[in-house]
Amino acid sequence: MTHFKVNTRSTRSNARTGVLQTNHGDIQTPVFMPVGTQATVKGVLPMHVESHGAQILLSNTYHLMLRPGVDLIRQLGGLHGFMNWRRPILTDSGGFQVFSLAAMRKISDQGVTFSSHLDGSRHVMTPESVIDLQLGFNSDIMMPLDICTGYPSSRDQAESDMLKTISWEIQAVEHWRSKARGQHLFAIVQGAGYRELRDYCAAELQKYDFPGYAIGGVSVGEPIEEIEAIIAHTVPLLPEHRPRYVMGLGLPENLRFAIAQGVDMFDCVLPTRLARHGQFFAGNGDRRNIKNRQFFDDSTPLDPGCDCLACSQFSRAYIRHLMVAKEMLGAMLLSIHNIRFLIRFVDTIRSEIENGTF
Amino acid sequence: MTHFKVNTRSTRSNARTGVLQTNHGDIQTPVFMPVGTQATVKGVLPMHVESHGAQILLSNTYHLMLRPGVDLIRQLGGLHGFMNWRRPILTDSGGFQVFSLAAMRKISDQGVTFSSHLDGSRHVMTPESVIDLQLGFNSDIMMPLDICTGYPSSRDQAESDMLKTISWEIQAVEHWRSKARGQHLFAIVQGAGYRELRDYCAAELQKYDFPGYAIGGVSVGEPIEEIEAIIAHTVPLLPEHRPRYVMGLGLPENLRFAIAQGVDMFDCVLPTRLARHGQFFAGNGDRRNIKNRQFFDDSTPLDPGCDCLACSQFSRAYIRHLMVAKEMLGAMLLSIHNIRFLIRFVDTIRSEIENGTF
Repeated sequence: MTHFKVNTRSTRSNARTGVLQTNHGDIQTPVFMPVGTQATVKGVLPMHVESHGAQILLSNTYHLMLRPGVDLIRQLGGLHGFMNWRRPILTDSGGFQVFSLAAMRKISDQGVTFSSHLDGSRHVMTPESVIDLQLGFNSDIMMPLDICTGYPSSRDQAESDMLKTISWEIQAVEHWRSKARGQHLFAIVQGAGYRELRDYCAAELQKYDFPGYAIGGVSVGEPIEEIEAIIAHTVPLLPEHRPRYVMGLGLPENLRFAIAQGVDMFDCVLPTRLARHGQFFAGNGDRRNIKNRQFFDDSTPLDPGCDCLACSQFSRAYIRHLMVAKEMLGAMLLSIHNIRFLIRFVDTIRSEIENGTF
Repeated sequence: MTHFKVNTRSTRSNARTGVLQTNHGDIQTPVFMPVGTQATVKGVLPMHVESHGAQILLSNTYHLMLRPGVDLIRQLGGLHGFMNWRRPILTDSGGFQVFSLAAMRKISDQGVTFSSHLDGSRHVMTPESVIDLQLGFNSDIMMPLDICTGYPSSRDQAESDMLKTISWEIQAVEHWRSKARGQHLFAIVQGAGYRELRDYCAAELQKYDFPGYAIGGVSVGEPIEEIEAIIAHTVPLLPEHRPRYVMGLGLPENLRFAIAQGVDMFDCVLPTRLARHGQFFAGNGDRRNIKNRQFFDDSTPLDPGCDCLACSQFSRAYIRHLMVAKEMLGAMLLSIHNIRFLIRFVDTIRSEIENGTF
């Protein structure tokens, strides 16, 4: 398979640039993927997600299977048709959400039974069913059902979760091989903070030659040093010729670190979540809160270096007024800005890798 | 003065088309004005308010004087610069809000003292101060301080409110003549449902040759027959060569009725307020709720005849999903649609008047 090609390698780090081919077009890596959990990036029109440079967005199998359900989405042209998004889509398997949102979870070798956080209704997810769901969404990149071990965790718990995750992923990859039409299935490496578990998991999963490899179980509450240690340890265990994805990482300094380790893909809800609380990125990635009094009469844009819709049309003073007055437009503008900031941040790093200045 | 010109008169009703000149450009009448109370049309980017055909928008002196305050707005280029809106702006005087939102109101001949609904702070509005505020906003059309009599009201109350309103308006127009630079000041005719009070008020105010005349005190809780009776009675009392504005009217059937009586201008918060509750206009102006089960798998646009961003890009099924999932994008899309619907509705009537088919 030649769906992923490394173009440039940094001489001063393990960073690299590449191209990932999907059914809905090519993705230049490294790439930041905005999150649209419920088939919408919160507060941002799909056309603006696209015009602000998003190459791919992420949506969530758990949320979409519960509401509005896969049948409706399939009927309306898959997730692309449903939400009017033309570029690639990655869907998370929902494993993480089952373990963070749903109630009455029961895990067996076959999969997981749980109650919806919306209405308490009972549902089952199996390694095969989550592939079928994602085929119904027509996702470009699918993730297998996994168990994301929390933090902190005992070694026994982490090992048991990891072993079950591997067996589910093997079921998933076999099902995927028999049914997929160009959609990629990524593996997820678990093992919490235990290096030997990460070693084992990465080695086992590579036997199945997945189209890509994700590092799961980071950014689940552990300190940043721990996240960085896991990433630094795990990336070298992954195959060179496959895209590498760290799930749930979204602060600029974390992205820079991970890219230097050789990670290609990132997703995070932070840009829009921070926005709804008034926080915005500026400069080198500092977070500031627009509701601070200092911005009351600030006629400059959120970030003078930014080319987003919010920065090209509105002042900090106006956006502060909107947030203080609890007007929707405030969160809308901050969301657009924060997404654009992270995309531009990663785009700049990609150029630096290509130029040899990273 | 030639700032308003009637172009066409309907032969079958009192409807008419015209052009109203302002400091920020011409307005074709009849016209529907979307409301941006706090310097934002709720949930809609200014560029989309403009691209969906709004010729003028309305904002509110009461809200803006309290937050963020006139000094900031003046400093940031007036309301146009502050919110990045290039076309004309009409600002309400805030009289209506003082009597509906503020606490501890005390009315004197000089004006009204009240407590802010935001923080309880004490404020004063005088006929002169509301003109000064609106000059600070650099509004194109200003409204004078008035007392909007509630419904129901005694004749004595209505008369007393109306007389005070007239005396305030006389103070306002004198202050305006000494300070304005092309901004228009409209009169507001009060008198509740009492015809002789409307007669008296309209006659008195015309002595001062205001640039436009508004009918206030309608749509404050009275039945639609009463609203229509007041409009039908009051419009013929107003000068032919001045624009006529009914404040706070926004349902399609009400607009059609009022235009036939010879009204030129309308504003209403309904399109965005209905949107936030899932309601949308379709067809001839029916209201429907997108959350209804019948729209679950409806792949058609909100209104097949509509050219708005929501209707050209998304299905009812998707927008229903967004509203059911409490996603901001749902209210954003319904708001754009409802605004476009009312603008298109009035545009169509304007063409019909011109063609003689109204």
